[in-house]
Amino acid sequence: MITVALAKGALLKDSVRRFAAAGLDFSALLDADNRQLRVPSTCGRARALLVRNADVAVYVAYGQAQLGVVGYDVLKEHPLPVAQLVDLGFGGCRMAVAVKATSGYSRAADLPPHCRVASKFTRCAEAFFADLDLPVELIHLTGSVELGPITGMSEAIVDLVATGRTLQENGLVAIDELFHSTARLIGHPLALRLDAGPLQALVDRVAAAGSPPSGP
Amino acid sequence: MITVALAKGALLKDSVRRFAAAGLDFSALLDADNRQLRVPSTCGRARALLVRNADVAVYVAYGQAQLGVVGYDVLKEHPLPVAQLVDLGFGGCRMAVAVKATSGYSRAADLPPHCRVASKFTRCAEAFFADLDLPVELIHLTGSVELGPITGMSEAIVDLVATGRTLQENGLVAIDELFHSTARLIGHPLALRLDAGPLQALVDRVAAAGSPPSGP
Repeated sequence: MITVALAKGALLKDSVRRFAAAGLDFSALLDADNRQLRVPSTCGRARALLVRNADVAVYVAYGQAQLGVVGYDVLKEHPLPVAQLVDLGFGGCRMAVAVKATSGYSRAADLPPHCRVASKFTRCAEAFFADLDLPVELIHLTGSVELGPITGMSEAIVDLVATGRTLQENGLVAIDELFHSTARLIGHPLALRLDAGPLQALVDRVAAAGSPPSGP
Repeated sequence: MITVALAKGALLKDSVRRFAAAGLDFSALLDADNRQLRVPSTCGRARALLVRNADVAVYVAYGQAQLGVVGYDVLKEHPLPVAQLVDLGFGGCRMAVAVKATSGYSRAADLPPHCRVASKFTRCAEAFFADLDLPVELIHLTGSVELGPITGMSEAIVDLVATGRTLQENGLVAIDELFHSTARLIGHPLALRLDAGPLQALVDRVAAAGSPPSGP
């Protein structure tokens, strides 16, 4: 039986739609009353594991799921031995450097050396500022990163920006971009190599299903 | 002005009650409609920062909050230069090793060497198994750790257990305890040293207020 690890949260609805278009119905996961973390597909030939965004690649890397859907941002921040199979197109957002709108900085290279930068993605931020040759002090936060500049704890943040509304509401502005992120279909390399056909067929169907528009 | 960092989630209600008993009313934080992350006390002499559990000690360590309330478990997992001032008593839970009820293991030392252990608290787990002199492979997860043994990814988990209901619902059983955790009042060491009186007076009032029973 094929197991697919899907991330709770923003990617779930589009993930379920994409697998539905590929012939596997996991719509029970979208039921607000669902408390199950393992849900069989309606056809009974596959099942979904509902896990945290950051855990999808872990289950795939350890072979507990043969496939998974996760944001490219998470794969960049927590590299794991999984195969990136398909860029699913949805869940688009960008990893950006943001500062207070009143700060006067217009790009990351303007930031003062050794300033503090708060982020949930400190590895991505570390690589970016190392490339810039700008030494900064990284502060790891797990949420509400916009509080960094608001409280004065940090000069800048590195965070995911989708609509930009959170930045705007908090008087922040994006001044530089690290990379663009979308949802990816990932796979367990050994499972793909040992596959007699059905796994690759499913990957092909997911790839062919295209990215349906996100809506209510 | 005194700033207090409070954790979203399970500790919030008791934290607000305890500060209310000490003379600072942050009850606006309990309003379900509240979207503000910085809320002034009713008297206007202090304010609360509403942040993630794991971030409370960060804001206190960097001096953006002089005081904070956070679980001992988080302080153990992410050591930061903050002063532990008062054991607040509420938020009691234990960090435990749990396995499948059908596994036959009755204590952590029974686990096979080099088995996999999944946890959100991999540093605590690492120290515990090092003390036991039992080599294990730790798998870091960010949520729903009980899926580790259920999917067969790990032999055991190390996780916080409050009522034990989650373990029971998932056919797991606790076989060993790492430590007991409760909420702690923490402080910024320099702020405490430079304090002319009001900060210590607040700490004393919070300590004296005792732990009101948790209720609906």
